[in-house]
Amino acid sequence: MFEAHFQTFEEPETGIALASRLSAFREELTRRKLSGFVVPRADQQQNEYVAPSEERLAWLTGFTGSAGLAIVLAHEAALFVDGRYTLQAAKQVDTKAWTVESLIDPPPETWLTKHLKAGDRLGFDPWLHTSTAAERLAAACAKAGAELVAVDSNPLDSVWTERPPPPLAPVTIHGAQFSGETEKEKLARIHAEIARLGVDALVLSDSHAVAWAFNIRGADVAHTPLPLSYALVPKDGRPTIFIDHRKLSNAARDHLEQSGDVREPEALTAELTALAQRGGKVALDAATAADALSRLIISAGGKVERGSDPVALLKAAKNPTEIAGTRSAHRRDAVALARFLAWIDREAPSGALTEIDTVEALETFRRETGALKDVSFPTIAGTGPNGAIVHYRVTRKSNRRIVRGDLLLIDSGAQYEDGTTDVTRTIAIGEPTAEMRDRFTRVLRGHIAIARAIFPDGTTGAQLDTLARQFLWQAGIDFEHGTGHGVGSYLSVHEGPARISKLGTTPLKRGMILSNEPGYYKADAYGIRIENLELVVAVDISGGEKPMNAFETLTLAPIDRRLIDVAMLSKNERDWLNAYHARVAAEVGPQLDDATKAWLDQATAPL
Amino acid sequence: MFEAHFQTFEEPETGIALASRLSAFREELTRRKLSGFVVPRADQQQNEYVAPSEERLAWLTGFTGSAGLAIVLAHEAALFVDGRYTLQAAKQVDTKAWTVESLIDPPPETWLTKHLKAGDRLGFDPWLHTSTAAERLAAACAKAGAELVAVDSNPLDSVWTERPPPPLAPVTIHGAQFSGETEKEKLARIHAEIARLGVDALVLSDSHAVAWAFNIRGADVAHTPLPLSYALVPKDGRPTIFIDHRKLSNAARDHLEQSGDVREPEALTAELTALAQRGGKVALDAATAADALSRLIISAGGKVERGSDPVALLKAAKNPTEIAGTRSAHRRDAVALARFLAWIDREAPSGALTEIDTVEALETFRRETGALKDVSFPTIAGTGPNGAIVHYRVTRKSNRRIVRGDLLLIDSGAQYEDGTTDVTRTIAIGEPTAEMRDRFTRVLRGHIAIARAIFPDGTTGAQLDTLARQFLWQAGIDFEHGTGHGVGSYLSVHEGPARISKLGTTPLKRGMILSNEPGYYKADAYGIRIENLELVVAVDISGGEKPMNAFETLTLAPIDRRLIDVAMLSKNERDWLNAYHARVAAEVGPQLDDATKAWLDQATAPL
Repeated sequence: MFEAHFQTFEEPETGIALASRLSAFREELTRRKLSGFVVPRADQQQNEYVAPSEERLAWLTGFTGSAGLAIVLAHEAALFVDGRYTLQAAKQVDTKAWTVESLIDPPPETWLTKHLKAGDRLGFDPWLHTSTAAERLAAACAKAGAELVAVDSNPLDSVWTERPPPPLAPVTIHGAQFSGETEKEKLARIHAEIARLGVDALVLSDSHAVAWAFNIRGADVAHTPLPLSYALVPKDGRPTIFIDHRKLSNAARDHLEQSGDVREPEALTAELTALAQRGGKVALDAATAADALSRLIISAGGKVERGSDPVALLKAAKNPTEIAGTRSAHRRDAVALARFLAWIDREAPSGALTEIDTVEALETFRRETGALKDVSFPTIAGTGPNGAIVHYRVTRKSNRRIVRGDLLLIDSGAQYEDGTTDVTRTIAIGEPTAEMRDRFTRVLRGHIAIARAIFPDGTTGAQLDTLARQFLWQAGIDFEHGTGHGVGSYLSVHEGPARISKLGTTPLKRGMILSNEPGYYKADAYGIRIENLELVVAVDISGGEKPMNAFETLTLAPIDRRLIDVAMLSKNERDWLNAYHARVAAEVGPQLDDATKAWLDQATAPL
Repeated sequence: MFEAHFQTFEEPETGIALASRLSAFREELTRRKLSGFVVPRADQQQNEYVAPSEERLAWLTGFTGSAGLAIVLAHEAALFVDGRYTLQAAKQVDTKAWTVESLIDPPPETWLTKHLKAGDRLGFDPWLHTSTAAERLAAACAKAGAELVAVDSNPLDSVWTERPPPPLAPVTIHGAQFSGETEKEKLARIHAEIARLGVDALVLSDSHAVAWAFNIRGADVAHTPLPLSYALVPKDGRPTIFIDHRKLSNAARDHLEQSGDVREPEALTAELTALAQRGGKVALDAATAADALSRLIISAGGKVERGSDPVALLKAAKNPTEIAGTRSAHRRDAVALARFLAWIDREAPSGALTEIDTVEALETFRRETGALKDVSFPTIAGTGPNGAIVHYRVTRKSNRRIVRGDLLLIDSGAQYEDGTTDVTRTIAIGEPTAEMRDRFTRVLRGHIAIARAIFPDGTTGAQLDTLARQFLWQAGIDFEHGTGHGVGSYLSVHEGPARISKLGTTPLKRGMILSNEPGYYKADAYGIRIENLELVVAVDISGGEKPMNAFETLTLAPIDRRLIDVAMLSKNERDWLNAYHARVAAEVGPQLDDATKAWLDQATAPL
């Protein structure tokens, strides 16, 4: 009845079968007179999802997590992962060949300074590291008296048999009905930023920025409609878009050529070199630009201005068309969510469902809207103890039956052409315990504190983060992730630069969309998270003295009333919840079949 | 009846009389072949209060604010001050000779690049700038094609006739009954920090650090018991303390010689040079170490490790003896505060009092405790519109009569040998307006949110700051200063590194003392601030999972009940206020005369 098109549940290859790859790679390193090599989980643009042709780390090690780094030396091989992947890495790699090490604290550089010998030559592919990362590696090598060597071609690619071809998904035009601003208008704003930076040109090294600037989308990586590409925008004159021509229909090519010149990706280095040879100063995005770009500009005599890509901030503040689109996408998504939540309530208490069943059902309900382009990330469906694993992704092996007494945590999202969604609900299966209700209510109060926040223009996400945690702290508990991330407009569901986190130093601007997702995770027992997307809007306060902002909640789905300890809510909090539920009933109810509407009415009844 | 010993109310010299100083200074610059010179309001250690012999900026310009910088060129002279001093600067300086410019945004460097010419030689005294500040100046000079020149002797001192001699206040021993930790124990902890830094020696360039490490105090600057001094602590072996011998009694010298060698301040450069000539690596405090120290180490062949003085963090977390001392200091201060607040309530409504009367009375009540060493800063007593000036300091000229309908804001503190206090109360004179009560109650709710906060180990002040602002933001208003600063133990009332502010990135550790002082300022109308000192303490929460901290309020003084709109308080907030007032009555009441006790009983009656 239900099935998933956009997500698989297969186990990855296990490490044992991969031993021959490591030895072949070491032989290649010896041929190239390298003492070792660094293999990051990264493509040329530091994308969150990478194409199969870029999955070097998984091919070599067997580790399939979304962040990590391997370092292969003659006699040691180490895989570096962060805390959420320690267990998974130990299961996936051949621990006879690999040690699993810490990615963050201490960082791989600490390991490097211990294991490199004076005179060693450590290779790295400068297309797969930012300059900041390369500088850290170089400093670690220097400490050990070794040398960091940028290679011209990646030695791993020489031994990777059956490497998949690069993706060539067709480019689509993101029309004015969705983008709300012409390429010409956007380029004028980008030119103003280039003038402000005082540089001769800006490289868009992030395909999200290219997609936004030129109003195109693609399908080169999973779950994000990215057209892998680059652009070079000179301070005056036409920009050049670098993109594989096989991805362009005549219409797409015509569209792009209205704004700039279209060239093959390989032409980027030649064009940058020419600019640099004229002494040009080029702005590069510190977060996504490959170290190779810096190196070629500098070696050709140009100057590099490293900083934040100004397009990231332009893109983050959505315009009225994008805002109307996201509201529409959320109303559509809400129908699928209501059908899904009603189905869970009907089917789960009997014990008939597994986590995979819920993932398949939710995608099916979303497909039945007729507008689903993809899920915006692999759905996290964790019941009972699996809910406590923050980045859990269900496989056939981990798949767990949902039973009475469980909390079921479902974090999911959709890509529609008019907007990207991301929503988490936690559902009581059978009767929750008093502790579960206490914890859920504390998470909910934090969620409401963010949703109700009013804050001056210029306030950062770091300044709001504690509002989401205060009620958990009062109980001596916390959650170990940020409160919220930026969200794109039919682009990445994780979009910078703003976020709600103690590290979120970007001021929140009107039109930005952020998630609001506090949680609580009791290891080996259950997980709780409540997530809505929020739009930053102006708010006018009588008697106020400063321009103030607030959040408008975009997501429309009931929050499980059975998990709320009403006595713990203040009157304001209860009023907020009842008003939110009334809005959900009013906006979503009329779109539903009778049975689902009846379910929604009781799920949104006032407390 | 009342008088102030520790604070004066005199008008500073006006600028017109100072014109001859500027021309004498310019002649001296010409003699030295300098195109200009930078005169900061700073001593060699970047102290908040500087000795009269260091008041170069005031002598030259007439400007007496606590922060500022002058740049004198051949044909221009500019004084740079921050927003709080713009009006004062324009009144104090001769605006025919000086322009008043922005100190922060844009910084003086922007002005410099515009006004310097290629080939200019801009002088600066490297003893009066940190290396970071000197680097900023050098970069600005380079942009203009000019050169920044470090002078060996300050040209201003050559023309400053009747320059006061440097202070020579006697050094006192801060006994174990106050310090709670021997110099030997402290040195062992400092040595551990030096080992962690991996350096050969640490310079204590901050007299606060020397005072803490060697358990001494002094009186070389106003309001802070500082013995101006340096110390050099090698990674092993005896430290050297550099201090003017005329400040040392035999007892003080014996005390210091138990821990280290005692030399004259001039010997510091020779000893550092010798260390540097042996290739030594020396840790310098980025915030207080003069650029001259970096320069002499580097030019002698040594290495500089610039960072945060580790002593600042050791000093900030008070030990049990210091904590007992501060509690005792606050109970003593509370008697003076109760007598003062009762006196205001009795005398002010008739219109008989001025701001200066209140400053004199408060100091007198504090002196009558028999333990007052100094006020910890000049009392801010602002009534009506003067209360809205955040850093107001009353003079004979600005002195305002207190009248019915005013809010009177009093921010004051005391130095006792067992602890330093800092407290602000806002008092209704006559009947407050509904708006005043609304604003006061919002400030109070923010104050209570900080006082009641529970937060995990490792939480920074930045993470708590918003708790103090949230209720003001809901009304579209805010306050333009941090929520709190660290406080020393019979040391500076403004002590780093922790603070409650969006810039406060230091984790709050148990034993730290911080002020909690949200406010609201209505320009030309009134000011509100409520300030208590808070001690960071461990809190044990049943069912909690992490080490948690909370604040214990140290300050004991009634908060004006007449200004509270009780209907705006939550039950928890009202309970907090009633419990606080009950504690004030219980701890302070028994120490008071009958009349004051009767006043306190009504001022602390439950709401």
